[in-house]
Amino acid sequence: MSDLKPVLAVIGGTGSLGSGLARRWSAAGYAVIVGSRTKAKAAETAARLASAPGASQTIGATNAEATSRADIVIVTVPFASQAEILAEIKPHIGTRLVVDTTVPLVPPKVARVQLPPSGSAAMSARALLGDGVRLASAFHNVAAHKLQSDAPIDCDVLVFADEPKEREIVITLARAAGLRGIHGGPLANSAAAEAMTSVLIGINRSYKVDGAGLRITGPALA
Amino acid sequence: MSDLKPVLAVIGGTGSLGSGLARRWSAAGYAVIVGSRTKAKAAETAARLASAPGASQTIGATNAEATSRADIVIVTVPFASQAEILAEIKPHIGTRLVVDTTVPLVPPKVARVQLPPSGSAAMSARALLGDGVRLASAFHNVAAHKLQSDAPIDCDVLVFADEPKEREIVITLARAAGLRGIHGGPLANSAAAEAMTSVLIGINRSYKVDGAGLRITGPALA
Repeated sequence: MSDLKPVLAVIGGTGSLGSGLARRWSAAGYAVIVGSRTKAKAAETAARLASAPGASQTIGATNAEATSRADIVIVTVPFASQAEILAEIKPHIGTRLVVDTTVPLVPPKVARVQLPPSGSAAMSARALLGDGVRLASAFHNVAAHKLQSDAPIDCDVLVFADEPKEREIVITLARAAGLRGIHGGPLANSAAAEAMTSVLIGINRSYKVDGAGLRITGPALA
Repeated sequence: MSDLKPVLAVIGGTGSLGSGLARRWSAAGYAVIVGSRTKAKAAETAARLASAPGASQTIGATNAEATSRADIVIVTVPFASQAEILAEIKPHIGTRLVVDTTVPLVPPKVARVQLPPSGSAAMSARALLGDGVRLASAFHNVAAHKLQSDAPIDCDVLVFADEPKEREIVITLARAAGLRGIHGGPLANSAAAEAMTSVLIGINRSYKVDGAGLRITGPALA
């Protein structure tokens, strides 16, 4: 990667999490390609994001086009669509880093931890993409709607990847989105953050709060 | 349960987590029975705890005796011993509430999430004890050595049980130990906190911190 900021493709970028991340990255100076199954929907979201004060270049594309034109590919799709969308973009990934944000929520019991047989959505992504793809997972616990404003978000981003240097890249992206990223260990550890999302949804219900989050405590973690 | 504080059995109470919890509960006015495989070891730990200023009655017993004489049974044993110890105390549980604290750490890679086929140590406990036993899980994320002092601990305790009223009982115990307990949902959700322990161990190593913890954020959660 050069000194230029990488171009980011946000796959499923018309959704709540994807558009929220795209919005913050665009505001932080990153060129963003919003990917969607339909180019018109992607273009609509991209135009809205591009019209915000201080926004960087933000365009819409199909998921496949977005992948092939970006440096880093962030996948923000529902669990039920993960396999299909990964298959769609797989031929275009090449040497790009893929950041999967999928949380294995199984409706209707989304507040119940229901990890897939692979162990986690991230390990499912690994199986679907193969060992040759650079893969990380992150952004599982942040309440999507909070990304739509500029208010500080009281939630850390645990970042998982087998290679620490891939985690560093995602930690930089988290920081650009106004979030603290933390090394969470190998991709297999993604199960922890993915499972925690169901716990947080349950906490929102039990305590009638709006967007419970997660903080890692410990001195000198900043 | 009456207005009297319940008598607590801490199974595996000579270990780091068990003795730390026993120490704090004893200081909070709970009668504590330290359980161990050998009565002499249990008595030794109990005598040490009982000699602390302000300690409540604290005695040692075999795990089976401790279970049969207590109102609530807290199991604090290594993952590798969980099945054996639960089998040992099972005939003595009756209507008592069991609080399992087991974290499925698999040496040597304890910083790698390796959940058991059942989904979690808590679900393994459920399978081992049967559906008739009152069962909760908690205290997965607190650094054991921090319980040995009276200093505040910057870590929440996620409490899992299928019955909210069982969770309430454990939240009261967490508070007595100086910790904030939070409803984490059904027992199956224990996977989230158990997996997070491996992540925290990895964070301790990566960031060279001592006892990273976990906080749930969100307004009005106190």
